[in-house]
Parts: sequence; structure tokens; C-alpha cells
Amino acid sequence: MEHHQSDTTVSLLLAQQLTDAMAAIHARGWCDGTGGNFSCVVRQNPLVLLMAPSGVDKGKVLPADLIEVDGAGEVIHGEGRASAETLLHIAIVHTTGAGAVLHTHSQAATLLSRHYTANPRPKNDPLSPTRGGWLELSDLEMLKGLEGITSHEVQIKLPVLANDQDLARLSQAATPLLAKAPQGLLIAGHGLYAWGQDLPQAQRHLEILEFLLEQHWRQLLLEAMVAATRTP
Amino acid sequence: MEHHQSDTTVSLLLAQQLTDAMAAIHARGWCDGTGGNFSCVVRQNPLVLLMAPSGVDKGKVLPADLIEVDGAGEVIHGEGRASAETLLHIAIVHTTGAGAVLHTHSQAATLLSRHYTANPRPKNDPLSPTRGGWLELSDLEMLKGLEGITSHEVQIKLPVLANDQDLARLSQAATPLLAKAPQGLLIAGHGLYAWGQDLPQAQRHLEILEFLLEQHWRQLLLEAMVAATRTP
Amino acid sequence: MEHHQSDTTVSLLLAQQLTDAMAAIHARGWCDGTGGNFSCVVRQNPLVLLMAPSGVDKGKVLPADLIEVDGAGEVIHGEGRASAETLLHIAIVHTTGAGAVLHTHSQAATLLSRHYTANPRPKNDPLSPTRGGWLELSDLEMLKGLEGITSHEVQIKLPVLANDQDLARLSQAATPLLAKAPQGLLIAGHGLYAWGQDLPQAQRHLEILEFLLEQHWRQLLLEAMVAATRTP
Amino acid sequence: MEHHQSDTTVSLLLAQQLTDAMAAIHARGWCDGTGGNFSCVVRQNPLVLLMAPSGVDKGKVLPADLIEVDGAGEVIHGEGRASAETLLHIAIVHTTGAGAVLHTHSQAATLLSRHYTANPRPKNDPLSPTRGGWLELSDLEMLKGLEGITSHEVQIKLPVLANDQDLARLSQAATPLLAKAPQGLLIAGHGLYAWGQDLPQAQRHLEILEFLLEQHWRQLLLEAMVAATRTP
Repeated sequence: MEHHQSDTTVSLLLAQQLTDAMAAIHARGWCDGTGGNFSCVVRQNPLVLLMAPSGVDKGKVLPADLIEVDGAGEVIHGEGRASAETLLHIAIVHTTGAGAVLHTHSQAATLLSRHYTANPRPKNDPLSPTRGGWLELSDLEMLKGLEGITSHEVQIKLPVLANDQDLARLSQAATPLLAKAPQGLLIAGHGLYAWGQDLPQAQRHLEILEFLLEQHWRQLLLEAMVAATRTP
Repeated sequence: MEHHQSDTTVSLLLAQQLTDAMAAIHARGWCDGTGGNFSCVVRQNPLVLLMAPSGVDKGKVLPADLIEVDGAGEVIHGEGRASAETLLHIAIVHTTGAGAVLHTHSQAATLLSRHYTANPRPKNDPLSPTRGGWLELSDLEMLKGLEGITSHEVQIKLPVLANDQDLARLSQAATPLLAKAPQGLLIAGHGLYAWGQDLPQAQRHLEILEFLLEQHWRQLLLEAMVAATRTP
Repeated sequence: MEHHQSDTTVSLLLAQQLTDAMAAIHARGWCDGTGGNFSCVVRQNPLVLLMAPSGVDKGKVLPADLIEVDGAGEVIHGEGRASAETLLHIAIVHTTGAGAVLHTHSQAATLLSRHYTANPRPKNDPLSPTRGGWLELSDLEMLKGLEGITSHEVQIKLPVLANDQDLARLSQAATPLLAKAPQGLLIAGHGLYAWGQDLPQAQRHLEILEFLLEQHWRQLLLEAMVAATRTP
Repeated sequence: MEHHQSDTTVSLLLAQQLTDAMAAIHARGWCDGTGGNFSCVVRQNPLVLLMAPSGVDKGKVLPADLIEVDGAGEVIHGEGRASAETLLHIAIVHTTGAGAVLHTHSQAATLLSRHYTANPRPKNDPLSPTRGGWLELSDLEMLKGLEGITSHEVQIKLPVLANDQDLARLSQAATPLLAKAPQGLLIAGHGLYAWGQDLPQAQRHLEILEFLLEQHWRQLLLEAMVAATRTP
């Protein structure tokens, strides 16, 4: 396979957009300590992903630092190692047709993903074989920021998977859930994956889902408090 | 009707002020994910509103991206679509004489608007036909930031309306409440509308109301906790 | 009295330092919606204070916008009105010898000042005639940021006064508490006054007290929760 | 001993990196009010540390303001006083081989360090003779940001020491805990020390530990609330 993408103007523009997006996401505190992974599809067939190398501060990556990765997760262009999590990015692109995948480690995503794995809801509907759960969101205007949703009167179920350091196994567990997932997926004690047709849409979905997670955690606090003070 | 407004220096200055205000509001996290709507009155009779087109990131809008909308909510100048929520902006301008309307999606506004719709207070005074409620605020110095209030020893009642995707119906439900509303209105699970005679005053009212909402949510937490620890 | 201060290099430098301080304080969200008041002593005898005029956005004040005020609270130089709260600034300068006074409206100060007025502690030691209370802080390393404190093993009592729109009366109520106050004072439902020998010290005291207030509110939450879960 | 370090290009670069790191840490609110201490090893044998003088605003330090300190904590180059806490920096460098030590005063570190000193866990394993405790963290992907950790399925025990104004005694109490400490240590009511082989690694460890502390405090809130609402 001959590979020209990294020379084109389109690719340079995409590289700039991706590093701008990473800097903005870092500034919000969603990928501290070299955490997080962010990728864009440069070419669909055969698949080429543009992404940051593993283990770098995502707030300081320059376009020239980015690497290109093939559909097996191997680096085909640029310096550095691809994160093991690249396999989940690839599974999301293959299953959903996403053009960009953004993976963050926010406080709310980490907290709620653990909470709903420890306290699956509904109790009689555990995710199998992932030992995860669901986070249900409804009746919020911000849900309309997710592509295809036109009213607050919907309910979405964000899947929560148990964490697994074997990314091939984790990607396999995630795959059956992706087609129906509302542009996002939680990994327990780990964080959020959000995606979209292109980078701007993926960024919009990320901001919407992070807003909804932060909102949900505050709502849990408030509801629990109202309940606690009603105890006779 | 001949339309010259967009050429004038006054209008250019207003466009710059509006995009500056939107960028500042976005930086505070009050309009994530292309959320929020912000408008200024360019002309009162016939009404011309300057605002951002629907579906764009409000932190990145340039003066040239703004559209002008007439009193029926139709775009009369510029590229893009007017948000369906334009109808509520127009209702607010007509009823209150506001020169600027700012609509945000903050965490506190979303949370409290839902809370007081689910738990209307006082219980024997439900808002009808809006199935909403009231959020009462009193004894806070910051209340003096709302035009016309000169002492902390007042009580304001911020109306909370049930959300509705039919904006004509929602605007109609809002109208009887607007004249007495304290420069702001909540929509349940949705967010805050704040307004003022001109853009600087609307911005001041927005900051004051958002401060008071954040304060109120922290106060609910603290009060509930004091009550919970007193349970015998 | 002849008045030359505003022409001198010293005064220009002080004006720049004061507007820089106001911009930094505004960026932290401690004086939203034109709230807050900030003053520096230009001359002690007769007293001349440099401060922002009332009713402006404290994040955008330029050195040339500042006014000078005399010991009776009257504007003697510059455009605009002096805030009614200038009287309390003057009382603090007279009683403590402060060279700068910073008054903020933060979430934590507003919340805790109300909490300790409604729940005075200790119960048998109400502040009279101010109907206020005390906020006690101890065993925190950050206390050492207050001038004269050299160990965390101290206890400070931050006075909390009831709010009053009559600033002459409020200043009179505050005066007997100022000499022993730990570089700061709370007004119920209103905010914090912090001061110091000069502007950098006042800024340090402000940051320290705001940190301690935010810490105290989180500690109240955590303690209440621990207590609530221990209820048999 | 002849001392050339401050002239070299390496040292100038390090000074710039250290002041950049301090400005970034200050911007996150982790060293308000002249709090915090930050050091880099310039030379190991004999030890030379580069650090900020005591009592300055860590967000505004310039490379030329930095001081160099020897292995006894004495200033050997530059203007100003070394903080008393320099002794603990030196103990950490000697015991762990760290190339950089970062000491912060965040809300979460202050709160949790006090909480686990007051409520030691496990109860039958008090730290002696430090009268401190442990903060246990497990099952979080972000733990992998600490050098040497390759799975979320670990448990780390962050030591919590009682605070002590005698820094020689505090350093002595800390020393036996340092070799096994997970790149960090808490001082009760005071804050966090984090370190690493070099400045970028120390910064990564600091961001990771601060993230985990903030996460832990939110988790305590959520767990307590779930427990409180289950009370029969």
C-alpha cells in the first residue's frame, strides 16, 4: 500500500484541528497526566487513523507529533508508540462509521462508571458478559445535542463496561453495544468514549455527554439528600 | 421594508459586543455543545434581532456569522437557520421591552429547574397551565445586582416552566409570567433565560442569576446535610 | 488641601496594580455582575483611597477609570460614584491600619456567612449587637498565610456580621470586631472583606481566606455525611 | 566547592521549565496565597536543588528569581530565603532518587489528609510514630499514570503524616515511608508532596494524584449518600 495522506493539505488541516481539539479538551481537565486518546479517520479503506502517540501530555501535542495507525493498530507514519486503546478506537470506527473518536478521563465519567458497575440499574438487567450496567438519562434539553435526538422526551441508555487491560477482549465486549450506544460508552473506573461523523460532531457529542454526566452526578447528590432528610 | 442596519457602525459595534459576550459566556461553561441562544435588539419597530445561527459553537462565532431575524422569527439577513427558541426571545422582548436576551444551559439552572418542577414549592401554588413552579431567593446581597432591587431584604420568585418542544406554545405559556419575572425565567431540565435593557445589563443579570442559582444549590446541600445529621 | 497624588508615578503604578488585582479576582469568579469593591490607601493623613467607581464590571476597569475618595467617602478625583460600602473600607483602614481592602462575593463566603448567622456557634456566645456569629478555623497549614501566624496549631475566629443596607450602622457594628479579626470579616449572605498592610499582602490574605472558606464548606459536607451514615 | 551550574544552558532551560511548571500549577489553584514549594535537582553529588524562594507568589516567579540550595538546605546562589520545607524535599530526593519534588495545597489533598488522620483506616494499623494513616486507592485506570503501574487492578496506599512545624522531625518521620510511597505523600491539613525522576514525570505524578484525590472525595460523598438513603 502506498501512503500519501500525510503530505496533503487536507491532512495538515485535520492534524491542526485534532491538536486544537486536544488542547481544548486538556484545558477542561478531561485528560490530565498524559491520559486520554483522540483519533480522526484520515482514510476509510484501508483504514488510516490520525492520533497522538501514547504517553504524551495531550495539551501540548503539535501537528507534527501525530502518528498514523492502520486498521490493525500498527503505526504506519510518525514517531512513537500507539496506545493499546487504539483497538477500541478502531472497533468504534468499524461498527459505527465514526470519523472521529474522543476518549476522556473526567471526574464525572470516572465516578459514575464505577457507581453503575457497583450498583447496576435496573438490577434484573445486568450486562452480560461485560459485568457492566447502564446509565439512563432522560428529560434533559441537552440530550438534543446528540445527533438524531429532537426532543428532551427521550431516554438514552449509556452502556457501562467493566474495565479490562486486555484491549482486544474489551473491544470485543464493546462491539455488540456500539451500534445502539448513544454516541458514547463508559468504561468502569476509567472514562468516556464519545464519537461522531467527523471531528466537530464528535467534539459536540463529547461536550454534551460530559455535561450530562456532571449533571447526573449532581442530581444523584440532590435526590439522595432530599430522600435522607425525609427519613422519618 | 428597506433594511440598512447591518451596514451601520452601530450595528458592527453591537455585533462585536454580542460575539464577545458569547465567547465570555462559553468560557464559563454555560453553553456547551452548540447550546444556548443570545440575541440583541437592533431595531424595535419593526423588530429586528441580531443573533447567532442555530447549531454553531457559541464560543467561536464571528461578527460576520451573525444573522438578523424579524418579529416572526424569520431570517432577514445573513447565512444560516434561526433557532426555534427565537420565538421565546421575541416574546421576552415584546413583553418586557428587553434590549438583549441571553439563554444559557448551566449545571445549576438545569438541576434546579428540574428539582422545583418535581418538587413544586409552595405545594399549594402550582403554576397553571405550565405545570411548573417557583424558585424563591431572598436575603442575599447579590440580589441587588438585579435592576430595581436596592436591598437584600427582598424575596424574588423565579418562574420555572415545564419544557416544551413546541416553542410557540412554550412562549405563550411564558408570556403571562414575564412581566413580573425578576429579569429571568427557568425552563425545566433546560436552562435559564435572562434579559435586560441592553446587552451589558443583560450580561449583569445573567451573571447575578447564575451566581444565585449556584448558591441556592449549595445551600440546599448544606441544609439537607444539617437536617440529616439532626435525625434522632 | 492641595491634591497631587494622581499625577505621581507612584500613584500610576498603584493604579495599575489595583486594576491588575481586580482583573485577577474577577477571573476567579469572586466579583460577578459588577459586585465587589477594592481599595488602596494612596495617603494616610488626610486619608485618600484609590478605588473603582460603583456599578462597573470589576474585570474590565482601567487605571484611568479609578476614583479617589476622602475619609468621609466623598469622591475627590475621577468620574463616577463611590459605593456605599466605601464607609466600611474606611472603617477597616482606620481601625486596622490596612493599606488595602478587598471585598469579594464568592460562593463559599456567601454560603458560610449565612450558615453561621442562622446556626451561631458556640450557641452561648452570640455576637451582640450584630446578631452575627463566628466561623472558627484551626489545624490547617494554610492559616500560616495570614500575617503573624507561624503554626497550624492555632484557632482563628472569623467574625460574621448580620447584613445591613445602612453602611454607617454596619461599619459601626464592625468596628469593635476589626482589631481582633484575623485580617478578614464576613457579612451574612453578602461576602468577605480581607485586608493587609499593602495590596500584595491583602491579596495574599484574600486568597488564603477564600481557600479556607471553600475548604471549610467541603469539610462540613464530609463531616455531615460521615455522621449521617453512622446513624444507627 | 566551585559552583558553575547557574551559568550553563542546561540550568537556564531547567529554570524556565520549573517556572513554567509553577505557573501551570498555580493556574489550577493548587498553590494559592504564596503556598507550595517546587524543586528540581541540578546536581546530585554534592546535591544542588533549584527552587523558588520562600514567601513569593508561585504563579509569577521568573527564572532569575530562583535560588539554589545545598544538601543542608542552605541557599548557595540567588536572592531570598529557602522554605523550612526544603528539608523534606531533600529527604525525598535522598530516599527516592527523585529529580523533582512538587508540593501543593489543593482542596482535595487538604480535606482528605485531615479526614484520614481523624478517621484512620484500617483502624488496627495506625502509622506509628507519625499518628497518621493511609489513603487507599484502587480499581482506577488513572493509577496507570504512576510510573511502574500497568493495570487498574492494583491498590496503592498513600501515606498520611500528622503535620509538624519542626521540619527536621517531620522529614525524619517521613523517611521510612518514602521508599514504599506511590510517588506521593500527604501531610495532614497541609497538602501533597509528589515526585518523579525528572520534572515532566513529577508533573505527571502530581496531576494523577490530584485527580485521584478529587475523585476519592467525590466517591466518599456519593457512597455516603447511597448509604444514608438506605437507612431503614
